[in-house]
Amino acid sequence: MARKAPTSRPASSEKPARDAPSASGAQRSLTYADAGVDLDTYDEFIDTVDSVLKRTHGPRVISNPGGFAGLFRLDYNERLFKRNYKDPVLVACTDGVGTKVSLAAKARIFDGLGIDLVAMSVNDLIVQGAEPLIFLDYIAVEKVDKRVLGTLLKSVAEGCRIAGCALIGGETAEMPGVYRSGELDMAGFAVGVVELKRAMNSKRVQPGDVVLGLASSGVHSNGYSLVRKVVEHAKLELDRVYPDLTGPDLADGRSKKAQPPSNQPSNPAREQTLAQVLLTPTRIYADSIVRTMRKYRVKQVVSGMAHITGGGLADNLVRALNDKVDARIDASSWPVLPVFKFLQKHGNIAEDEMRRVFNMGIGYCVIVKPTFAEAVADKLTRCGEKVYTIGKIVKGTGKVTLS
Amino acid sequence: MARKAPTSRPASSEKPARDAPSASGAQRSLTYADAGVDLDTYDEFIDTVDSVLKRTHGPRVISNPGGFAGLFRLDYNERLFKRNYKDPVLVACTDGVGTKVSLAAKARIFDGLGIDLVAMSVNDLIVQGAEPLIFLDYIAVEKVDKRVLGTLLKSVAEGCRIAGCALIGGETAEMPGVYRSGELDMAGFAVGVVELKRAMNSKRVQPGDVVLGLASSGVHSNGYSLVRKVVEHAKLELDRVYPDLTGPDLADGRSKKAQPPSNQPSNPAREQTLAQVLLTPTRIYADSIVRTMRKYRVKQVVSGMAHITGGGLADNLVRALNDKVDARIDASSWPVLPVFKFLQKHGNIAEDEMRRVFNMGIGYCVIVKPTFAEAVADKLTRCGEKVYTIGKIVKGTGKVTLS
Repeated sequence: MARKAPTSRPASSEKPARDAPSASGAQRSLTYADAGVDLDTYDEFIDTVDSVLKRTHGPRVISNPGGFAGLFRLDYNERLFKRNYKDPVLVACTDGVGTKVSLAAKARIFDGLGIDLVAMSVNDLIVQGAEPLIFLDYIAVEKVDKRVLGTLLKSVAEGCRIAGCALIGGETAEMPGVYRSGELDMAGFAVGVVELKRAMNSKRVQPGDVVLGLASSGVHSNGYSLVRKVVEHAKLELDRVYPDLTGPDLADGRSKKAQPPSNQPSNPAREQTLAQVLLTPTRIYADSIVRTMRKYRVKQVVSGMAHITGGGLADNLVRALNDKVDARIDASSWPVLPVFKFLQKHGNIAEDEMRRVFNMGIGYCVIVKPTFAEAVADKLTRCGEKVYTIGKIVKGTGKVTLS
Repeated sequence: MARKAPTSRPASSEKPARDAPSASGAQRSLTYADAGVDLDTYDEFIDTVDSVLKRTHGPRVISNPGGFAGLFRLDYNERLFKRNYKDPVLVACTDGVGTKVSLAAKARIFDGLGIDLVAMSVNDLIVQGAEPLIFLDYIAVEKVDKRVLGTLLKSVAEGCRIAGCALIGGETAEMPGVYRSGELDMAGFAVGVVELKRAMNSKRVQPGDVVLGLASSGVHSNGYSLVRKVVEHAKLELDRVYPDLTGPDLADGRSKKAQPPSNQPSNPAREQTLAQVLLTPTRIYADSIVRTMRKYRVKQVVSGMAHITGGGLADNLVRALNDKVDARIDASSWPVLPVFKFLQKHGNIAEDEMRRVFNMGIGYCVIVKPTFAEAVADKLTRCGEKVYTIGKIVKGTGKVTLS
């Protein structure tokens, strides 16, 4: 499908008429260009992105040249790619990346934001047991900079490749009076599908179940209002390499050996500036979770999942529980990433507040039946995740306790 | 599903700890509240919106309390609501409402923006022959004002009701450093479904076909950079009633008699201020088009459609054509709405420029087989549309000519 042009831009590549004769004569006539929308810049940008998007398209995407809608076949009967759903439930999520965009704009590092954007929606979607199918992005900028837009869009496409979904649509808006100078915003939208009887249901969680924690890659995309406040408050320099930001093979939250090389971008923490560490892309768990769910499709050994976003581990894991169980989490069972210790120290932030705002090193939780806990952890590790056994489910009233 | 809180907000309703003991002691510890995110205000807002969203939910929406994803059953076998797709194609669109948000923020009129948001995506979606199913919104604000957010969200829900789709998700982000003071932005995402063999295909358009034009309700949601420039340039007052803005029963682009009372909000042009006229919500054609398509499901008498957005009639209609036909449009076949004459006069804008930027009174086009043109026009009129026969398809090379 065609990508829509910045707001209000005539779709034609012809230049708007200038100084056309008019009734009042003396007055110069107004055109689009006067209104601050630069068509040429946008056209150059759009030429470079079509091929980027196409790389995310599998055989289920239907070509729709010139159309402003993306088309995706749900059932697909061709050999090799056969997919059929008996009682398909569409699962849809939307999210932005919060004020991480503002930090990125300040540091002029844009190549991870699209991965963040895909991660935030897709990680919410897989929690339901769904398989991601399609993604669309909305990018609004104060002023079109085709290099920045190209980088953003390529990173969205990279996120879609990692998540295994097709980028079938998007919108770019240039809105000079709305955004502050140099600022931008992004919203993402993901749709997946799950067989009705395989959709996650909190009633499945039972005492005895084991809680597995999957390592995060860093701050992910929550808590950036506080991150920015710490940077400002402690007068930290974004382009400086701070020694205490780097830890022993931990800062990217996963073991080097286990990570499939082509899956997610590598972020060696050593030698990284503060900005680079803070802008490490959010880990996308879709591929690992979908592969694991597929392996245990019949036995339904996974009883619940949680994507750890704003509110930290407790406030997100609680949503996977029913009111007859508690999750008892051992906070010492995984290593806290150096970036969190760094932020806590420089911001002088209380431990409780840290745990309420940040993921602290665990980005995703999987609640599994105890007899399969080791097998599921092994499978997830082989998929490239760093997996910790962080707690268990006990009788209770739907609470999460950290000790 | 649960609506996500403003960016980075802890999901817990407990207040973040303040002045907690810390290693450095003397330094006051940083909390979320310091970072400018007001949780109480958001909580009050969220309490009021749940019931608004529920009103858009039919029996195919699956309840997902606490979840951050919306669930919608595609196939649905219960009596009364039976829906089954043989080869379903998902159709997805995203769009914003451009700098119309900025005009709304200036005039403090927010109750149409949500309808605009739904219209922009859903009108693109029905062009493919699809039936809208679900909608999600992303609303980002400089600062949470719960009255404004409530109004915006209610208007999104109203748009979904008009379009016949379920509002199953959304995100609200508070981003103080990104947006200018008092500004906001919105993005919408719509998903629909079409049977593969009923999806629109430009190859169906043949010489002899008739082009029907459906009246717009006003400027819709394109061209607002230019609109705002005209207002500024001609020193127009947004809260003033200008006599030449009102026309004989035309300014809302539809006949009063034909419009079903509950379908779309009425906007009598007389006595309306400039801001009210400029902020008239975009017409949503979904209900009329879906009903008409359903009536002619077997015969496939509709050969193409176009939603008239940025680029005006020519640049949008051209995308419905194949390269063996032209569309010959008679520009005098429908009345230009007074608001366009008003903008042209005060902005001293050339006629060509006007037609390239604005819809000029036609918001949607339907290309029909000649023997069914009258019957389709009648059906659309009974659905509440004001319909004009505006041109015909001739042999050609894929161009639109206006005369």
